[in-house]
Amino acid sequence: MNLRIPGPTPCPEPVLKAMSKQMINHRGPEFKGILERTAERLKHFFQTRNDVFVLTCSGTGGMEAAIVNTLSPGDGVLATTNGAFGDRFAEIVEAFGAKVQRLQFEWGKPVEPEAVQKALQADPSIKAVLITHNETSTGITNDLAAIASVVKRAGKLVIVDAISSLGSLDLQSDAWGCDVVVTGSQKGFMSPPGLAMVSFGDQAWAAHKQAKMPRYNWDFTKYKSFQARWETPWTPAVTGVYALNTAMDMMMKEGLPQIFARHARVASVAREGVQSLGLSLFGDLNYASNVITAVRATDGLDPKKLLAVLETEYDVIVAGGQSKLDGKIFRIGHLGWVNEKDIEDLIKVLKVALPKAGYKKV
Amino acid sequence: MNLRIPGPTPCPEPVLKAMSKQMINHRGPEFKGILERTAERLKHFFQTRNDVFVLTCSGTGGMEAAIVNTLSPGDGVLATTNGAFGDRFAEIVEAFGAKVQRLQFEWGKPVEPEAVQKALQADPSIKAVLITHNETSTGITNDLAAIASVVKRAGKLVIVDAISSLGSLDLQSDAWGCDVVVTGSQKGFMSPPGLAMVSFGDQAWAAHKQAKMPRYNWDFTKYKSFQARWETPWTPAVTGVYALNTAMDMMMKEGLPQIFARHARVASVAREGVQSLGLSLFGDLNYASNVITAVRATDGLDPKKLLAVLETEYDVIVAGGQSKLDGKIFRIGHLGWVNEKDIEDLIKVLKVALPKAGYKKV
Repeated sequence: MNLRIPGPTPCPEPVLKAMSKQMINHRGPEFKGILERTAERLKHFFQTRNDVFVLTCSGTGGMEAAIVNTLSPGDGVLATTNGAFGDRFAEIVEAFGAKVQRLQFEWGKPVEPEAVQKALQADPSIKAVLITHNETSTGITNDLAAIASVVKRAGKLVIVDAISSLGSLDLQSDAWGCDVVVTGSQKGFMSPPGLAMVSFGDQAWAAHKQAKMPRYNWDFTKYKSFQARWETPWTPAVTGVYALNTAMDMMMKEGLPQIFARHARVASVAREGVQSLGLSLFGDLNYASNVITAVRATDGLDPKKLLAVLETEYDVIVAGGQSKLDGKIFRIGHLGWVNEKDIEDLIKVLKVALPKAGYKKV
Repeated sequence: MNLRIPGPTPCPEPVLKAMSKQMINHRGPEFKGILERTAERLKHFFQTRNDVFVLTCSGTGGMEAAIVNTLSPGDGVLATTNGAFGDRFAEIVEAFGAKVQRLQFEWGKPVEPEAVQKALQADPSIKAVLITHNETSTGITNDLAAIASVVKRAGKLVIVDAISSLGSLDLQSDAWGCDVVVTGSQKGFMSPPGLAMVSFGDQAWAAHKQAKMPRYNWDFTKYKSFQARWETPWTPAVTGVYALNTAMDMMMKEGLPQIFARHARVASVAREGVQSLGLSLFGDLNYASNVITAVRATDGLDPKKLLAVLETEYDVIVAGGQSKLDGKIFRIGHLGWVNEKDIEDLIKVLKVALPKAGYKKV
């Protein structure tokens, strides 16, 4: 199977092999060593000196953890959103009773730093700003550095959903002033889903001390005290940690700049490839994501039919559109364990599959 | 390594092999089939016709999900507790603002159904009762059938932590009137940690509709609507579901009554074995657990030294005491993938290891 959705992404053989290692005591010396090595090396990928915690949950659990550890009901929160995942972040903070102002941008357009700045000036009660680094639903990468800079100048908390970006796209947590950054195991980290990783900085800890949203399972006070002896408060997904650690071995060997460059090259192959077939890209090309490419369904193309044809006839899996983009786009994931050849092959398959899905232009 | 802690428990080879299968689309037909097969077969082990959801989290996450899906801040909750895990359940519901009455029993003693009945009569505002089926910290199995019966007669919600019992000890969710039952993958289900499984009955759904504790990641309204098409709202631990499914193949083949009988036999070997060495069991023997045996550290025995000797010299891992039992007991886990011979071997090792840890009686 050629799995080209934006997560779970295919896992390299050594990562899968690590998943099949036998259980050990999650509070014994061997696992402590593995957890220390994992949490310490994650700092390199987060480009941070902050604490990084490994949670057993999906990315959404990590987003909820980021919120309940920093905020109180009634707190003013600016939720920037230009897609389905920005909306989800806003929904989480609303569910926990924050006073949310949604700063919405058209799907396919980027979040504008100037608009964030204006919103912060207009409402000084805002305490935190939620930012989706890479909006997987539209294939847009927001200019996190510029947005975070505006937020930090206003002295507010920067809380980042970096689930589909971290480990694939440059994200300088400390240099850019990101207080809380959430990512997951099943995207750039080439590991199975089941772990979220969250970095938590000094300003986040200060907010944490005042934060009154109810929390138990996600409580970072507990995570920090257990991590001091390289344990997690609750039984972690032991095999997931084995896998993540193995994936990081491979990623350290390749090097962060090389990983970012590879994703940029692969994204170029994807963008040029679909355009060579006469298709057009969805969204603002200046912000086109290097981890996922969203393609408009034009010229008779039925994207649902395309997904079915690709799966049944070619064993290739791409993603459809989410929410308001359902039936209007399809999306090619190219993050994690992927190279130029993988996407060149995919474009070749698309060339023969597209006409079977109604596309008239090839 | 001979891992004899109460979870994670050792995984059989086919389960480990299932963990190393490649990723697939978690919203595609193949995974839908696997999730359906998993959730439907879990009903057999829960002995229920209720919905059973598979969450990506530790057991504690499952406990939190059970609480926030049924209760509101200010609700009266009776938390029965005779050990560390009963205390944890009480702490969770307190963290989310319920009005908690703790009905505490001495560690090593069982929860008394009569006392529960009295507490319910004394305070009609109580809406739900929290019960730990098997208290892993003390090696006591509470009489869940009797306690649940008292609670159901009073018309209150029965919320059960069955993390270390379900799949190893008889738990008749429907026959006994358990509205919400929580378990985990890494105990009786012989799978790696990372999944919690929660059953949710009609009275729980009725409570859910009124429940005001904030929830997003754990929201069972979302879980139910996604499960209707055999998906989870958030990306699940795909490999964990593979593994659980494989473990259930093995468990179905053995048969539930046979599994319960095996655990009873293995527990007898453990209890008689440690007594044959002159050691005495901790707690009320009438309620001694068939999944874990707690042993008093007497006659000069230093349990921490014992754990170290067992690990370094014999590659055997048992558990120490938790919280107020730290340094006073050690515990042998015998649940999941375990047979009589495993524990006979462990007793032989104990015989030679105990004197090295100060024990004067062998």
